[in-house]
Amino acid sequence: MSELHGNFSQNLKNIGTVGRSLSTWLLLLVPLSAAIGALCAVFLWLLDWATQSRFHYPNILYLLPVGGAAVAWIYARFGGTSDAGNNLIVDEIHTPSAGVPLRMAPLVFFGTIITHLFGGSAGREGTAVQLGGSLASTAGKYLHLSNAQTRLLLMAGVAAGFGAVFGTPLAGAIFALEVLAVGRLDYAGLLPCLLASLIADWTCHSLGAHHTLYHISYVPPASAPLFQHPLLLAKAALSGVAFGLVALIFAEANHKFGALMKRLVPFSPLRAAIGGCAVIALVWIFQTRAYLGLGVWSAIPGDPTISGFFAPSTDYWSWALKLLFTVVTLSTGFKGGEVTPLFFIGAALGHALAGLLNAPTDLFAGLGFVAVFAAAANTPIACTLMGIELFGAANAVPITIACWVAYTCSGHHGIYLSQRIATPKH
Amino acid sequence: MSELHGNFSQNLKNIGTVGRSLSTWLLLLVPLSAAIGALCAVFLWLLDWATQSRFHYPNILYLLPVGGAAVAWIYARFGGTSDAGNNLIVDEIHTPSAGVPLRMAPLVFFGTIITHLFGGSAGREGTAVQLGGSLASTAGKYLHLSNAQTRLLLMAGVAAGFGAVFGTPLAGAIFALEVLAVGRLDYAGLLPCLLASLIADWTCHSLGAHHTLYHISYVPPASAPLFQHPLLLAKAALSGVAFGLVALIFAEANHKFGALMKRLVPFSPLRAAIGGCAVIALVWIFQTRAYLGLGVWSAIPGDPTISGFFAPSTDYWSWALKLLFTVVTLSTGFKGGEVTPLFFIGAALGHALAGLLNAPTDLFAGLGFVAVFAAAANTPIACTLMGIELFGAANAVPITIACWVAYTCSGHHGIYLSQRIATPKH
Repeated sequence: MSELHGNFSQNLKNIGTVGRSLSTWLLLLVPLSAAIGALCAVFLWLLDWATQSRFHYPNILYLLPVGGAAVAWIYARFGGTSDAGNNLIVDEIHTPSAGVPLRMAPLVFFGTIITHLFGGSAGREGTAVQLGGSLASTAGKYLHLSNAQTRLLLMAGVAAGFGAVFGTPLAGAIFALEVLAVGRLDYAGLLPCLLASLIADWTCHSLGAHHTLYHISYVPPASAPLFQHPLLLAKAALSGVAFGLVALIFAEANHKFGALMKRLVPFSPLRAAIGGCAVIALVWIFQTRAYLGLGVWSAIPGDPTISGFFAPSTDYWSWALKLLFTVVTLSTGFKGGEVTPLFFIGAALGHALAGLLNAPTDLFAGLGFVAVFAAAANTPIACTLMGIELFGAANAVPITIACWVAYTCSGHHGIYLSQRIATPKH
Repeated sequence: MSELHGNFSQNLKNIGTVGRSLSTWLLLLVPLSAAIGALCAVFLWLLDWATQSRFHYPNILYLLPVGGAAVAWIYARFGGTSDAGNNLIVDEIHTPSAGVPLRMAPLVFFGTIITHLFGGSAGREGTAVQLGGSLASTAGKYLHLSNAQTRLLLMAGVAAGFGAVFGTPLAGAIFALEVLAVGRLDYAGLLPCLLASLIADWTCHSLGAHHTLYHISYVPPASAPLFQHPLLLAKAALSGVAFGLVALIFAEANHKFGALMKRLVPFSPLRAAIGGCAVIALVWIFQTRAYLGLGVWSAIPGDPTISGFFAPSTDYWSWALKLLFTVVTLSTGFKGGEVTPLFFIGAALGHALAGLLNAPTDLFAGLGFVAVFAAAANTPIACTLMGIELFGAANAVPITIACWVAYTCSGHHGIYLSQRIATPKH
């Protein structure tokens, strides 16, 4: 029993060490995460402003080539390594080297606002993650932290940005761990990421930022809680295959088309200008502006939006159009994230599949919302938690099935090329 | 673009391969998981019967030393490697060698029923996991599967047993992946485990097995969804430290006291008989039978039970008594699991802490329920999902905080000694 006592007091000592290191982390993480959360609140507010401005002045779209070229020129002139974006952050977490430059924060912040003001089709998670990573890396350099500490701080910064910008702190914490490698979740950083994500989300909320609420009214019959309809779950799995394939198309198209454009047009401002013109051409060809911007709001009532896909309709192709608009925007160098367009593509595809499979529209829109992103970012567990955070626990089983099947079907190269492959999918 | 096309068709081919391998897995996993689910239903029904019988004939307790000795003798005479239990299964998943013997299934099945019939304090997850592992390993041997396939099948068997016995299929799927190593979740086996867990749970439900429902009526105010009370969350984190320390005490006490008893009394039937006498002595000393059996039901209304801890009272020490009764029972060689007693200990400790911290009793009982187990088994993500499956998503944030903090504070040697340490906690 003395050995038990010895072991136990050893463990108590360990907890003392953890406690001390925790206080240090608290002193460091609380202000950093609060700052990232506050920046995300301003960012969300400015995105809202940019989108409303575009709705008020539709002709601003014709400045998209100019806006894109200007941002690309600024990046080329002053950006340094900033242009690598999320990939630089993932790389710095894996093998800390020169760090993430502080200038990445203002560049991606204003670059994304310009994309959305002039009508590019893009997202916001990349921006939030880069804000978090850039601030965290700078804090680490300023405080002369070790590589291991900087790594944790960077992960916490990613968690804070992600958790705050989507209002999903649990998904944010897991995302920061899960995005680093395909097929493996390593628990180093579990608590710092959770703390950072919660504080950033809380700050963002406290400053009055609102997240669109999505509602799935479908609930499985109460007779057998949680797991009821094998047929419905089979449909969720089948849809998961489609979600995974579309995520694969999205990621591959972005990479290949981006590489092709870089080869054909090495001068980045010209590339962005061409991309802007292409987006304008797409608006002319398809005679709609519904696929510009985030896709969260629409200027014309009845135009497709993410929340609109939660109600039945006969819209079968919005997912493909949004994919096209987004690939053209992002692969020509516009700034912004991939995730909100992936939410749109997923919700639209789930909406369409619900019609084909005779399944509840709201549920399948929700499944697509999280599962296409799960597959494209190779983050099935973060997206399962995001689905539960956004839509509640009643449909946790189909959400999990859709996310995990989609992840299994999307190949090994997701939207983040610097992600390592730890455990192949098959 | 031809490269894109080539890559994409390569990926389609991969999906074809996945599809074929999936059909094979379906043919194998569906009947296996259904069989495990059915066995779990019978097991749950017999546990109920054994407990009711003990309530009807209280003097049956005095046969506990004889029952324990008989089971220990049968294990020593016929069990082969079965006595290693869950540890053998985890070892076989890591490094497949002789396999898990089929006889483990009937031995642990009836051994656990005898523990509960005569009044030992134990659980049921070990039994369910060993039923699943034993059947899966036998199927693998019979079908001459490769080591890699057997490994996946064993994990699926664990997921099926766990998912069915607690009615929490998502937690079951993650548990089977997470229990293998401390600090790392590897995604190989993600889908087979999910499928097995869902089918086993569904079979178990369909055969009429009922799981006790626990209800947390506390909901955070709707004004700020999910994340509201920093003070409440700080209390959840503080309780998480206590949950982790108690899990550490439980695991260490089981290991050390078990090793001591083995050294002092090498003859296993005598050891179990002594354990049985010690449990009877504890009943005399504390003048209560409330800490016998699972702790899910009570013979005397008002006696502490797991669901009772969800309502306020002045019971501050039930967690320590249940810990004592369970360590005496399990470390002297009685069969059964650790998890249901850990649910009891956690809910009782959460209940007590809620009183001390002026926090909602039902919420903190629920936090302890999942977090002590998370810390003792080193499975924080499975337990987070279990908490969401059992209690809903409204309190997902405090559930996550409690589970992750408890996990961080419980040291590296949980209740499963064959667990590898992949990433140290600190």
